[in-house]
Amino acid sequence: MSFTPLQERVCQANREINRIKLAILTWGNASEVDREAGVFAIKPSGVSYAELTPEMIPLISLETGKAVGGTLNPSSDTATHWWLYREFLEIGGVVHTHSPNATAWAQAQKAIPCFGTTHADAFYGPIPCTRPLTRAEVEDAYELNTGKVIVEHFREHGLSPMEVPGVLVSAHAPFTWGKHAMAAVTQAQTLEEVAKMALASLAMNPDLAPVDDFLLEKHYTRKHGPKATYGQA
Amino acid sequence: MSFTPLQERVCQANREINRIKLAILTWGNASEVDREAGVFAIKPSGVSYAELTPEMIPLISLETGKAVGGTLNPSSDTATHWWLYREFLEIGGVVHTHSPNATAWAQAQKAIPCFGTTHADAFYGPIPCTRPLTRAEVEDAYELNTGKVIVEHFREHGLSPMEVPGVLVSAHAPFTWGKHAMAAVTQAQTLEEVAKMALASLAMNPDLAPVDDFLLEKHYTRKHGPKATYGQA
Amino acid sequence: MSFTPLQERVCQANREINRIKLAILTWGNASEVDREAGVFAIKPSGVSYAELTPEMIPLISLETGKAVGGTLNPSSDTATHWWLYREFLEIGGVVHTHSPNATAWAQAQKAIPCFGTTHADAFYGPIPCTRPLTRAEVEDAYELNTGKVIVEHFREHGLSPMEVPGVLVSAHAPFTWGKHAMAAVTQAQTLEEVAKMALASLAMNPDLAPVDDFLLEKHYTRKHGPKATYGQA
Amino acid sequence: MSFTPLQERVCQANREINRIKLAILTWGNASEVDREAGVFAIKPSGVSYAELTPEMIPLISLETGKAVGGTLNPSSDTATHWWLYREFLEIGGVVHTHSPNATAWAQAQKAIPCFGTTHADAFYGPIPCTRPLTRAEVEDAYELNTGKVIVEHFREHGLSPMEVPGVLVSAHAPFTWGKHAMAAVTQAQTLEEVAKMALASLAMNPDLAPVDDFLLEKHYTRKHGPKATYGQA
Repeated sequence: MSFTPLQERVCQANREINRIKLAILTWGNASEVDREAGVFAIKPSGVSYAELTPEMIPLISLETGKAVGGTLNPSSDTATHWWLYREFLEIGGVVHTHSPNATAWAQAQKAIPCFGTTHADAFYGPIPCTRPLTRAEVEDAYELNTGKVIVEHFREHGLSPMEVPGVLVSAHAPFTWGKHAMAAVTQAQTLEEVAKMALASLAMNPDLAPVDDFLLEKHYTRKHGPKATYGQA
Repeated sequence: MSFTPLQERVCQANREINRIKLAILTWGNASEVDREAGVFAIKPSGVSYAELTPEMIPLISLETGKAVGGTLNPSSDTATHWWLYREFLEIGGVVHTHSPNATAWAQAQKAIPCFGTTHADAFYGPIPCTRPLTRAEVEDAYELNTGKVIVEHFREHGLSPMEVPGVLVSAHAPFTWGKHAMAAVTQAQTLEEVAKMALASLAMNPDLAPVDDFLLEKHYTRKHGPKATYGQA
Repeated sequence: MSFTPLQERVCQANREINRIKLAILTWGNASEVDREAGVFAIKPSGVSYAELTPEMIPLISLETGKAVGGTLNPSSDTATHWWLYREFLEIGGVVHTHSPNATAWAQAQKAIPCFGTTHADAFYGPIPCTRPLTRAEVEDAYELNTGKVIVEHFREHGLSPMEVPGVLVSAHAPFTWGKHAMAAVTQAQTLEEVAKMALASLAMNPDLAPVDDFLLEKHYTRKHGPKATYGQA
Repeated sequence: MSFTPLQERVCQANREINRIKLAILTWGNASEVDREAGVFAIKPSGVSYAELTPEMIPLISLETGKAVGGTLNPSSDTATHWWLYREFLEIGGVVHTHSPNATAWAQAQKAIPCFGTTHADAFYGPIPCTRPLTRAEVEDAYELNTGKVIVEHFREHGLSPMEVPGVLVSAHAPFTWGKHAMAAVTQAQTLEEVAKMALASLAMNPDLAPVDDFLLEKHYTRKHGPKATYGQA
């Protein structure tokens, strides 16, 4: 069977979230969009990472959210990914995991304050937690509504998806994103590590305050945006 | 020596609980029943997972609970497995481990509340904790009585073993089950991960409430039962 | 170069504590005694586990505590091992590690209560913590005095070394023992796991009571002593 | 391409911090100085450990802090390393990581008290935490000022860099050092493990006192300085 480079990259990103232990069993999914072609590729539902191959990766229409390629059912979280691509026009890849420390924060229904430069290097402010979905939102079009409460939170709080490349869905787990699928994997890994450190810091000092704004500013802009000096030109 | 497919599957499930770090040393055992043949196969007592081969796996009569095949002594927990197969007619495989986070909850003698969708995807409600066994129950037929307090808890609380595929035995450790041995391994892995996340969420908020019933309902029924949409047809 | 089976077993036990992550860098040592020959073999000081070979293993006189074989300096903890062999006549192997959870309890200077059957399967009661050494005991013959406070604790509390095969040295770390070096490694692994679980259980319930005596009795005697039924004959 | 032994050692030290899980992604850097040649070698910015080769390692002038060899941008933390080499004349290697437990302490802005001999074996007293940098120090010459607050802390508290071979930078993460790059890696690994144990001990007893001075003295001097007896001559 044949497959596209998009399918190959998405296959690799899905295998990576398992390899770096962000997802056991089938507890996570990665996708990537090709905006010119008007499709995104996403993990098939319930397939183990070890068995996953590029030709298994379903293709979804960016316009309708419906499958337009592949024979396997797409991830049950497809509508959430779809909505994020529709509303966050800068993003190219989305990752969802149930990584343990990030999920513990989502379950506690708390945003992760910026307690240090590890956080500030990747997230320009707290990592937000959505409001809980209502009964109606859960019972009808649950996965789509999950995307909608994420977008609602970002709009209401004036957050930029590229500056805050991830979110905790209340009582659920994290979603992260980036320029492409593998960048979203890196954000998921960063979020998990930041969540772990924040938990431990809070255990020592439950009243710990976030870092100074100027430290957040320095670290974030050292790595991102026009003044970035990190990495190779 | 020869062996049956049942012995081979049980051998593999036992090796798997060690490979995925649910059991170190010889701290766990998996079994699977063949109801037509009237036997179940279970790990031999005290044998290391690395040395385990299919022909070593003892066969136990479902009617009497006594060994009917193999030359090695069966697991010291055999009577517990036996009672679960006798009373929970839907189940086909049982796993017992001392995985650290699930065991920490068993030692604290607390049921694990459903704090998120990771839990709701696999357990339709809290993961129960049995009452402690009495002196008489411990001193005589301890392993059988361990099975009996599990079944007592499920009957008294009207729980369905297939909807709540696991339990914490008070001051002891978890038992999980499923359609076959490998499904019970997956439940044991899920329980350990859910226990870890719940511990961390509670550390942040000791008064944390369980998720809304409609969220539990949505996630559980998305993966299980007639309305399930998860996975491939 | 030639080496004895004793040196080979001790080499293997030392490499094992590193392999199973009870000791990083050079943070642990294992020894085994040959009481007929009147010597014990122990890890050389400061040698990495990866480089360790049987012919490097020093031999120490059981009578004098001084090196009688090998050219390398023995472990700085040699006098502690020596004293344990001198006073605990039933034991054949000793292991010392700085495994993180057991060491956390030693640092907190608390005995580990028996909170569950994982503990009861291996330790017939709480895992004791010695008193702190006095200034005089630290400044002169520190390593020997470490052995002496361990023995003092067991004598004063009427503990049997084979029933309670390990101890926490206050503000320091665990020592464990068994019939031979590899058995002491297993006790060290068990102690680390039990320490981890006890920490997590206490985090949920700081007032948690130990298990019932009859449950401790049942689990310990199921695995040890004349009534043991665990394992193969 | 050709490379020097200094570049090769620095490459290896950087790969090692990733291999032993002190740094994921590109979250750490190691350097080593050649004081005779007047240069130090350091990780290039943003390059993954897996791709790192000796010829990629930039060389920096010890006099000016500017690159004098190599074509890649040096680590964004170069000025911190530079200042430490300038002011701590005994040190030969520096390592910076965001290892999770050490970073959790840095975020909590607390020095790590000496709670046991694991700590005392490597650090002659508490592991200090710097004051937070001011807005002016962050906004201008941030990385250099990070080095300056470290040195300020050591001078004001009369600490010797070789006796206390590491520090927590407030709201940031640890820096460690030693005679060469690989020795600084060992200190980083020790610091992470000590931080983990101290966190767990504090969870059991929030009022835990540090160890007696004479125990600290004994353990530190057993391994370091003229009276050291640890290791091979």
